[in-house]
Amino acid sequence: MIDFYTAATPNGYKVAIMLEECGLEYTPHFIDMAAQEQKSPEFLKINPNGRIPAIVDDGFPVFESGAILIWLAEKTGKFLPTDAKGRSTVIQWVMWQMGGLGPMMGQLNVFKRYFPEHIPAAIDRYERESYRLFGVMDGRLAASPYLGGDAYSIADIACWPWVRAYEWPGLTLDNHPHLKAWADKVGEREAVKRGVQVPPRPEMTDEAKKEFVERAQQILA
Amino acid sequence: MIDFYTAATPNGYKVAIMLEECGLEYTPHFIDMAAQEQKSPEFLKINPNGRIPAIVDDGFPVFESGAILIWLAEKTGKFLPTDAKGRSTVIQWVMWQMGGLGPMMGQLNVFKRYFPEHIPAAIDRYERESYRLFGVMDGRLAASPYLGGDAYSIADIACWPWVRAYEWPGLTLDNHPHLKAWADKVGEREAVKRGVQVPPRPEMTDEAKKEFVERAQQILA
Repeated sequence: MIDFYTAATPNGYKVAIMLEECGLEYTPHFIDMAAQEQKSPEFLKINPNGRIPAIVDDGFPVFESGAILIWLAEKTGKFLPTDAKGRSTVIQWVMWQMGGLGPMMGQLNVFKRYFPEHIPAAIDRYERESYRLFGVMDGRLAASPYLGGDAYSIADIACWPWVRAYEWPGLTLDNHPHLKAWADKVGEREAVKRGVQVPPRPEMTDEAKKEFVERAQQILA
Repeated sequence: MIDFYTAATPNGYKVAIMLEECGLEYTPHFIDMAAQEQKSPEFLKINPNGRIPAIVDDGFPVFESGAILIWLAEKTGKFLPTDAKGRSTVIQWVMWQMGGLGPMMGQLNVFKRYFPEHIPAAIDRYERESYRLFGVMDGRLAASPYLGGDAYSIADIACWPWVRAYEWPGLTLDNHPHLKAWADKVGEREAVKRGVQVPPRPEMTDEAKKEFVERAQQILA
């Protein structure tokens, strides 16, 4: 049995989508980050880094979304090629997401949405870097149907939840048509549609947005 | 034959150390980042992300330092356990480095050393986050001789070049004795000593530091 600890963040949705794509049974546990549940002694036993997502698979804890994707791919034999080069290509794009797209869009979210001070130079830096990374994906997807090659893989599952959240920090996909087409295509998959409901994103009325930002500011503080 | 494209950065040293640890033959190519060589059309064919390190192994290009470590570990059968759980534990810490320690210390370097504006709130953010991450490693290393478990692995090789560079953004290891002891122990390995000479770090006289920072500022601009 897989216990899945998560919240409504791009890194959480990666794992939700992967669990749905693989058809694995799992029990979701929604972590209240405003209440700092991810820093509780019980949770730190699962993930010493105090972050979501994490899973416990039949007693074995796995943290870091990229590592969970590889764990589940190897467990099921799905979404990760078995030949050395195909496999490495997919892992390269997963690493690119883990070290680039995620942290840079994450910092943009922080400085654009949650930071107590408004610092235009920091916002500019992360906006520019996010668009640079969108350009890298767009170039790749001009030449290849999926990030990892001909087949849908954990590279797409890693990147897609970040790309679909482009509006939150005020970005657009309009100048990256290959990226936009890929985002639409991946978003139409049934397992992806189910995954993004674990948990459902808060309704983004203006009031809800305000509340969400206030909670995020508390977490940051 | 392995062609290794690198420069004097923590991500570059990860791969240099791994190549030395594995006893692989390779040809180093030092990339002049101030001259933007990493953005040249030739280099973008190797790494579409335009960053070092990258390798070309018998015609097959691999980018992202974490992916290169896994590629070389699987090629040689070294520094990555073969049992599923041991292997995943090591990959979890590699991912933790790729998504956490590297990007956060990287942003601290940027705001502390290279950014055109002095923004204390941004420096504070990344300093706090870097120390949080040092604390996570320190806790792990209080309970385990190496990050991935009982044996030295690519998890240590991924983290060590970042930890050893703690002084550059003005951090200290003094409050993290287990981390410091581990950093010393890893630094004593002969292959590590050879790896950090590929390329040698610029001499850190005050004049050289100033020049290094000026070059980094150009790259950032």
